[in-house]
Parts: sequence; structure tokens; C-alpha cells
Amino acid sequence: MNANDKFIAASAHVDAAAVQPLPNSRKIYVAGTRPDIRVPMREITQADTPSAQGAEKNPPIFVYDCSGPYTDPETPIDIRSGLAALRQGWIEERQDTEQLPGLSSAYGRERAADPALAALRFPGLHRTPRRAKDGMNVSQMHYARRGIITPEMEFVAIRENLRRREYIESLRTSGPTGEKMARLLGRQHIGERFGAAIPDEITPEFVRSEIARGRAIIPNNINHPESEPMIIGRNFLVKINANIGNSAVSSSIGEEVDKMTWSTRWGGDTVMDLSTGKNIHETREWIIRNSPVPIGTVPIYQALEKVDGKAEDLTWEIMRDTLIEQAEQGVDYFTIHAGVLLRYIPMTAERMTGIVSRGGSILAKWCLAHHQENFLYTHFEEICEIMKAYDVAFSLGDGLRPGSIYDANDEAQLGELKTLGELTQIAWKHDVQVMIEGPGHVPMQLIKENMDLQLDWCDEAPFYTLGPLTTDIAPGYDHITSAIGAAQIGWYGTAMLCYVTPKEHLGLPNKQDVKEGIITYKLAAHAADLAKGHPGAQIRDNALSKARFEFRWEDQFNLGLDPDKAREFHDETMPAHGAKLAHFCSMCGPHFCSMKITQDVREFAASQGVSEQEALTRGMETKSIEFVKSGAQLYKQG
Amino acid sequence: MNANDKFIAASAHVDAAAVQPLPNSRKIYVAGTRPDIRVPMREITQADTPSAQGAEKNPPIFVYDCSGPYTDPETPIDIRSGLAALRQGWIEERQDTEQLPGLSSAYGRERAADPALAALRFPGLHRTPRRAKDGMNVSQMHYARRGIITPEMEFVAIRENLRRREYIESLRTSGPTGEKMARLLGRQHIGERFGAAIPDEITPEFVRSEIARGRAIIPNNINHPESEPMIIGRNFLVKINANIGNSAVSSSIGEEVDKMTWSTRWGGDTVMDLSTGKNIHETREWIIRNSPVPIGTVPIYQALEKVDGKAEDLTWEIMRDTLIEQAEQGVDYFTIHAGVLLRYIPMTAERMTGIVSRGGSILAKWCLAHHQENFLYTHFEEICEIMKAYDVAFSLGDGLRPGSIYDANDEAQLGELKTLGELTQIAWKHDVQVMIEGPGHVPMQLIKENMDLQLDWCDEAPFYTLGPLTTDIAPGYDHITSAIGAAQIGWYGTAMLCYVTPKEHLGLPNKQDVKEGIITYKLAAHAADLAKGHPGAQIRDNALSKARFEFRWEDQFNLGLDPDKAREFHDETMPAHGAKLAHFCSMCGPHFCSMKITQDVREFAASQGVSEQEALTRGMETKSIEFVKSGAQLYKQG
Repeated sequence: MNANDKFIAASAHVDAAAVQPLPNSRKIYVAGTRPDIRVPMREITQADTPSAQGAEKNPPIFVYDCSGPYTDPETPIDIRSGLAALRQGWIEERQDTEQLPGLSSAYGRERAADPALAALRFPGLHRTPRRAKDGMNVSQMHYARRGIITPEMEFVAIRENLRRREYIESLRTSGPTGEKMARLLGRQHIGERFGAAIPDEITPEFVRSEIARGRAIIPNNINHPESEPMIIGRNFLVKINANIGNSAVSSSIGEEVDKMTWSTRWGGDTVMDLSTGKNIHETREWIIRNSPVPIGTVPIYQALEKVDGKAEDLTWEIMRDTLIEQAEQGVDYFTIHAGVLLRYIPMTAERMTGIVSRGGSILAKWCLAHHQENFLYTHFEEICEIMKAYDVAFSLGDGLRPGSIYDANDEAQLGELKTLGELTQIAWKHDVQVMIEGPGHVPMQLIKENMDLQLDWCDEAPFYTLGPLTTDIAPGYDHITSAIGAAQIGWYGTAMLCYVTPKEHLGLPNKQDVKEGIITYKLAAHAADLAKGHPGAQIRDNALSKARFEFRWEDQFNLGLDPDKAREFHDETMPAHGAKLAHFCSMCGPHFCSMKITQDVREFAASQGVSEQEALTRGMETKSIEFVKSGAQLYKQG
Repeated sequence: MNANDKFIAASAHVDAAAVQPLPNSRKIYVAGTRPDIRVPMREITQADTPSAQGAEKNPPIFVYDCSGPYTDPETPIDIRSGLAALRQGWIEERQDTEQLPGLSSAYGRERAADPALAALRFPGLHRTPRRAKDGMNVSQMHYARRGIITPEMEFVAIRENLRRREYIESLRTSGPTGEKMARLLGRQHIGERFGAAIPDEITPEFVRSEIARGRAIIPNNINHPESEPMIIGRNFLVKINANIGNSAVSSSIGEEVDKMTWSTRWGGDTVMDLSTGKNIHETREWIIRNSPVPIGTVPIYQALEKVDGKAEDLTWEIMRDTLIEQAEQGVDYFTIHAGVLLRYIPMTAERMTGIVSRGGSILAKWCLAHHQENFLYTHFEEICEIMKAYDVAFSLGDGLRPGSIYDANDEAQLGELKTLGELTQIAWKHDVQVMIEGPGHVPMQLIKENMDLQLDWCDEAPFYTLGPLTTDIAPGYDHITSAIGAAQIGWYGTAMLCYVTPKEHLGLPNKQDVKEGIITYKLAAHAADLAKGHPGAQIRDNALSKARFEFRWEDQFNLGLDPDKAREFHDETMPAHGAKLAHFCSMCGPHFCSMKITQDVREFAASQGVSEQEALTRGMETKSIEFVKSGAQLYKQG
């Protein structure tokens, strides 16, 4: 943990842990139809499998990589300069945007001019913001609906396919057992998709059609050209979001940048900066300029800080300036709690835990104080105008989500969801990209209703849920109570899962908590992909299981989501290098390792030059004596 | 961690951490119809809720307590003496057992006579084993089928009810808001039970009928009279098992006893001693004599050690002696891999990970070596004779469970399950209690098939599953990959969940891993109870959520599954005592705590002496000006 309390821009440096190479891994870039489409993946190489017929090659596998240039040793990293603007050319060549003379937001200008902030301001931005030309719409949805396949769309198509076809092909040609390897490692169970329609291979045209339909989004603000495009939709890989951000009580800019790089290293597909403490504007600038993934925010938090925490004093004008301020910094999606309507607020009176969304409670307070309808609702079309001028996506906030099992699926929550569906139609009228936020705390038997109603009422706009937590009784373990719900709702069709860390309800997560939350949600999202039968999802499971069965310990560690922890756990009881070659671990010891027993007999059969089926038949027929002498084999290896 | 490598019986002492009082908790004993039925529960007291109308009482809640006398300050603990034999009287008064002159097992006698073991042998057992009189059957199932309600059955009935009725009554009479409190805290969502039939209140007669039907078991060896009865069945609370035990590579008797007391402290309903290392017999004796929960074992592990790890050399005679040896020590259930039939073994040849059950692989090796049918299958009725003479329950082992996602639900696994169903009928013919072990590694979409087939083929004998793990890609986090599956299969009808620790696949779990596994599985089991709508399951969630909403931090910690960790996490950023009274935590800080915002307005309304509905109506009607002046209230408190 980089305790960077007195943050000074001039001496800011990247978290050393974030730029460590990942074991046996190499950053590769898959080329698209043009040289500037270079899609990052992580290639994990594996050891050969020794066998009597000679070594069996285990070709490298490719995994989704959110870590950006941080894990590319070829790219120098200086967080004071920020990342390269890889999408700049694509944005410019569309000729529908203009470079502004300076910041449009009054607050942004004020911060930029404040000499007191000089020491902590991000020093590396040497361009002014960009905005759609008058009357233009620069959203990916707008292009998609006009039939245009953007480089962003092609990028995500390549990214989603994860070189699966090439991997299977590499198995086929890997040696004498190639065809068998391809059958084994390429096989997967038939999924249950609950109406999702995932093609075997993602084409750029499929991406376009899904975005045009509103069933997927690419959150890609034109002022965040540093980001690598990614897609969120039920017919794509399930994504996860990591929340970071300081609070008035805790953390600094340096720590938050470290959390962002740490999040993306371990697989955060997007990051929300939920800062509510000091220097929100500057913190966000540092995060966006250094983030390879889309950044989301809840602009009302900053608006509230601008009125000294007095919800009653919020105005549309302050909010509007905040939206523009953040859009020009490059925020890729905004949580907008436009569904917290005056008429729903009394429905929360009988709840166990009232309103637990920070944004929701702020707006409820405002609505009642003014006895007016939520200004985000009444100004929704004006918000759409801002969104489409920068391509900011909506994340329509569930301000009335349940904060306890007791409050799950109540009329306030479901009333708001219905309103979010209506707002989706309005946003779509403007060709603005939309996803819908969902709960929260929901017991398992009520989870599917959330998904089914969301699909119905919001017309399949991507669902983005926080967990849900499936019980309230485990503070300190809510990453797990919620992963149980997240895996299920991801299976049912949720497109992105917002992580929960072990600190939920108890305190601000630190870097370690962030990692724990990320890995927990990566595995939940992957479990959902497997259950849906997402094409190729089982490749990584198969490769890891094969490595496990073959006692390729290093490969088992490296193919997992967290090689560092797997190795650390193994080494706790068997630290010697030789133990990485051992055919057992400390759990069972040498006599009791079932994999070793099975392995032994397969290997022996192989050394006899017989096939598995022959070995078995022989075993079954020789009536024991010879079989015992030869070592009691079940199968051969390879 | 008690690194007790050179274990000496004379200086053995209880793990100090296991006898610490739990915060704000008191051990109570609920009396049955006779004075020697004293059912332990943990009573957690709570602070009052301050409100304008005076303090609102929050009555204590009662939670299931597996920790035995360790958490009872009235009971002196000396692990060299073992626990008191609380069931001794019940067993004796049935007059169907006899005290044997000594150990019946040759191996047991040999160990008892070996002077080299004197220093580590358990010194506190001053009785010889007990066995059914000739021709008698002492299983709980046998009594149940003859219409007898045993003290054990009454004990578990009281235990399952958890004083729920008394708690709701205490709410009703807690003060002026009592009726409202009872409605609020007693409410729960309607469950989805998938055919389970759980009565609102568990009666001793219901327990008897479920045991007679074979749908539940009370694992209660007459030689383990120290244990507190508990029940495993789909119409009862979902239980969890913790695996402990040394391996040849790691751990000692002292560490394993510590893991047992640690397991039960955090909620392990049963403990399996899976020792495969040194001094298995003596380790088990120490564990059983000190265990308040049923102990399970896999006797074939010890049998294999007796033949120096050579599976081919196993014989029925060695196995038989081992079963008797362990039955006379007091093991409450045996995992018996009698379903690993010769004809299923070739079906595993095309698997990704072969046979991963240790017991399964040992028996497969034996079967092939001898080309004979599994001797546990051919001698199954003789095993039943042993089981009913001591009341050991079967845990019919799934020796062919899948060890990878790839191998899930294959013909080997399902073939064995069908055989386990046939064996269940044979055991039931002998009135021997049975549960069925289940997988393993299963992707989510294939989990329900496991449950449905088990219910069908095994005629609702309790299902006892290991996870299942829902993906293979997260070594180091398999407590979580499996909790996702465990919560679901528990919901579908599994009666007991065998925990998985973070060390799974990597090494022998230490005490910390054991706790992590236990808490993870407790929350999964509870999520399952909630989803089934188990009567009263939501009481603890409701109480904790109310404490959370009211910023009763200490109560929030104490009502959770792990008060120590919740407090530690909270204090990491806000250690001061005053922070336990604060109406926010470091996550959001004071301005952004949604609960505080909601809370503030409720409290203000209360101070105005208006009801929630009035406050809301007033808020809605006053058209803002007055409302803002008075603080923008939503609801009142209380």
C-alpha cells in the first residue's frame, strides 16, 4: 500500500506492483483491419507434458487483458504524462467533433486557475477538450444505427473472441496427439442461456447490430482517447466493475491512482471513481489520464460537494455544469439517478433500511425539500444532449435499490426500475447508450425476478448490478455473499457485475480489498459465462485442469486468476523449488494424492505402449496377476 | 496458530482462541421434557435504539451454536480429560447396548499396547467401548421406525427451532412499538422450496418421522456420547462440514485438535477427520473425545496406511477391523466408497482429471488389480451390521465425482450415483442411517440435475456435497468458486455442504484457512435457508440490518458470523471508540452516508412527534418551504 498522503504531482510515480510482469505471460496485440487497431491480450505460455512418446506441447492460451500498457514492458510508464491517446485518430477522422478553445465548465475553469491546486494538478494534459460539432451526435449507438462499423466496434469484436479459433488450431497442429488435444481442450458443456443469443464468433457487424439495438454499449467518451474499447451486453462476456474513490475520512490521489492500476491489473473491466472527499476534480483527472479502461462516476456526488453537502441547495445548473465538467475530462459513463421519483419516496417509509444509494438519498432529500419532481428526471432530455455530444453512456442509477434482504424487490425498487425503462426509450431516441443499474441485497429466490423484469421493462438494455448480496449476516465477507448472487444474475443475463469488497458496510476498501473484490468478481463472472455456455469460456478451465492433473504446478498457478496467491498458498507448506515438480501437495501427501494415483497408472500404461482403452481392457482381462505385477494401471498418459 | 509439532499428551492444552467468550454473547441451555435435555444456543444481546419517545428495546436473538462447552465459562475445559459424556444416560437407559471388556479391533488393541505411543496417547478415556447387544440395532433410524422418540430427537427439534417463537414474543412485549417490531423483524420473503416440506415449527415427532423415512439422519455413535445431537436433512437447516486432518507432509495432533475446536467455534456442524499422516488412530481419539459435534472419517485412508500405501494389498479383513476400530472410538459417520464399481472405472478413462476422490482412486486401483468387484460393495451388508451395532451413519462416498468442470455430470459420476441409490435401499433395510456424497466441480447450469437425480435415485436420503466448484480458474479462491455452487445446491435441497478452504488444490489448510472455509460455508448455507424460506431464517438478517441502519456498530459486528473480522475491518480506518457511535464509516464519510441521510430525516420527524406517514404527507404537502426549514425529513424513527 502506497501511503501517499501528501500527494505531490511532480513526484508522483506508478505503483511498482502494477507494472510487474505477470508470470509466464506476454502482452500481445492482435491486429485488426488497419494498423492502428491493436487489440491487447495476455498470452500465457505453458510447459510441455512429459510422456513416454516424447513431450506433448501445451500451446499458450490467451486471456482477456484489462491492464493496458502497464503490463507491456515495451511501453514506458509515467503517470505524470498519462497514457497514449490510442483512439485519438479514430475520433478525429470522423470529423464530427471539434477541439474546444478551453473548458466549457465554469467549475472546471475555476479549478484550473486555482494556484493552490498547482502542486497536485495532473501536469501531463496538453490538449483542450473535444466536443461534437453543433448538431452532431458522436455516440457509438448513433454510428451503429447509421450502419457504420467503427474501429471501436472492430476492436471489441477481436477482443471478445480471445483468439479462440487460433488456440484450437494450435492444439490441432501441436503434435501427434493434436486432434485429441483439440477435442479435449476445446470441448465444453451446453449452456443454459435464458434467451441470450451469443454467436460462436463475434463479428464487427454483430457488435454494431447489438449496439444499434441498445443491447450492448461501448462506453467511450471522446475525451478519454487513452481507453481501450470494451463492450457491455448480455451477448458478450460478462464484465465487472471496480469501485474506487476517496472519502472525506480516508485516502489520497496517489492511493486512488494505485487502486485504479491495481484494479485493471487483476481484471477490472471498468472502474468507477466514487470519490466524495477532497479534490474530487483533480483525483478524477489523474485517474482518467492513466486509465486503460472506461471510467464511470456519479456526478451528483461532486455536485453535492459544490453546495457544501446540502442536498436542498442542489440546482439543475450546478448539476449541468458538473456533467459538462466531467464529460470534458473524459468520464465514459455517468450514473444518473433519474428514476427516483417523488411518488416512490413514500414507498420507502416502511423499509428496514430506507434508501441506501448515496445518490438516491440525496435526490430524495432534494425532492421532498422542494416538493418538486427529481430534476434529473425533468431535465433528462437536456442530459441526453450532453451525453451525445461527448459519447458518455448512461448508467441509470437504482437510487431505490434494497439495502437489506428485507427490502428486496419491493414496490419502490420495482417502481423505479419501470421508470428506468421509460428513460431508456428516451435516451435511445437520442441515440445515447444506456445501461441500467440493479440491486443490491436480494435473497436467491428473488434474483431471477429482477433480471426478468429488467429485460422486459428496459428492453434488454444491459443490466449492471451490485452483487446482489444474498444474505445480510456476514459483514466482512460481503464479497462472497454478493458473489453468490452475482454469479447467478450474470448467468441469467446481467452484462456487468459491480464488485463488492470485503470492507463493504465497514470502511473504505484499500488496495488489498480491491484485489480481493476483483478476483472474487472475475470468478463469478466467469462462472456465469460457463453457465451460459459462452463459446470458448471453458478453454481456460480445461487448460488449468489439465495442468493440475499433470502436476504442472507453475502452469496451474499461472493459468489461474491470481498466480501470486496460488503460489504463495502452495509454498506455505512446500516452499522448496522441487515441490513444484512433486506429484502431490501438502493436502494429501504422496500416498493419498488421487491425481497421482490415476496419473501413475496412466503413465505406466503409456510406457507399455498401449492405448488407454487397451490398458483398460488389458486390466479388465488379465485377471489381476500380470496387472498387479505391471503396476495396476488404469489409463495411459496423453 | 499453535505450532505444536512435538505433541506431548501430558502438556496438551486447549487452544486459547477457542475458549474466548464471543462478544455480547451468552451460552444458554433450553430445557426439554426432562432435565438432562439441555439444548445449547448462543444468545446475542443488543443495545437499545435511542429515539425521541425513549429507548426502544432490541431483545436478544438466538443463534445456532456448535461450539459445545468451549464457549461456556461455567464448564472447565481440559482437553486431556475430554468433554463430558452428555448422552451416556440416554444410551444406557435404552438397555440395548453392552459395555465391552475391551477393544474389539486387533489394531486398536495393538495401538493401545504400544509403549512408544504412551507420550501422545489420549489419557482421559476411562471407559471401554459400547456395542449393541447381540441382535439389537441401536440406530436412531431403528428407534424412529419403531415409533420411539429418543432424547436425541427431542434435542434436535428444540435446537432447530432456535427459540424463534420466544424471540418474536419478546419483540411484541418489548415496549410501545412492540407489535410493529414483531411485524418488521419477524417478516420474511416467501421461499422457493423445490419440494422440501419444512414445517413452521419442528416437533420431536416430525424429527422422528423424517428419520424413519430416511430423509434425515442424526449421526450419533454410541461411543461418542460427548456429542450434542444435530440433524441433517432437506427439511431442516442446511448444515456444513469442516474437513480437518493431517497429511504425511504437514501438521500434528495438537494442531488438528485446535482445528476441530476452531471449526466448531465458527459454526462447523460436523467435522471430518481426514488424517492420512502419522498416528491417525491417536489423532482421531483426541479429536473425538474433545468434539461436541459428530465426527466423520474415511476409514479406507487408515486401512491403506496399514498396508503401507499399497492399494492392491487391501483386504476386507483389514477394512473390517478398521471399521470396528473406528466405530469403537466413536466415529459418527463413515464415508464408504461402495459405489465405485468395476464397470464404472473405464468410464473415467476419457476424463480430464480421472478419479479425484482419494478413496475412489484407491478402490479403483484395487478393483483393477484384482479384477474383482469393489469389496466395499460385495461386503456391504456386513458393513451394515457393523453400522447398526454402534449407530454409525453411512456417508456413501462419491468416489467418481468430477474433479474438473470438464468431467461434470458424466456417465461415471451418474452411474455411481445410481448405485448409491441402490445401496441406500440396502442400508435402510437394516435401519442404518444414510447420506449421499455429491460433487465436486460442476458449472452452474448442471448443478440442479445433480440434485434432481439424487432426490430421485436415492429416495431423498440427505445429500452432502463438496461445493460444487463452479469454475476451475481460481486456485486460491476455491472457497468462493464453491460457495457459489454450494449456496445453489443447498437451495435446491442439499442437506449438508462440505466446506472448501482457500487452500484447496494447493496445500493443507491451516487454522486460518479453516475459519475462512467455515464462515464462507455458513453464509452459503444461510443464503440457501433464506432462499428456501426456512421459517425464521430471516430473523438474523433483519436484526442485523436494523442494527446497521441504526448505526449500532457493535450490534452489527456481533450479529454477524464473524464479529472479530467485522470489527477489525471497521477499525482499520476508524479505530477510535467514538467511531462505534458515529453515523457513518470511512467508506462514504459523514456527508455521503445514505443511511445517515435517511436516518437524520426520520429522527427529526420523530422529534416533531409525527408518524412516518404524517411526516411524509406533510413533506409532500407543505410545498417545500416549511419542510426545508425543519430539516427536510422523510420519516420518523421507531
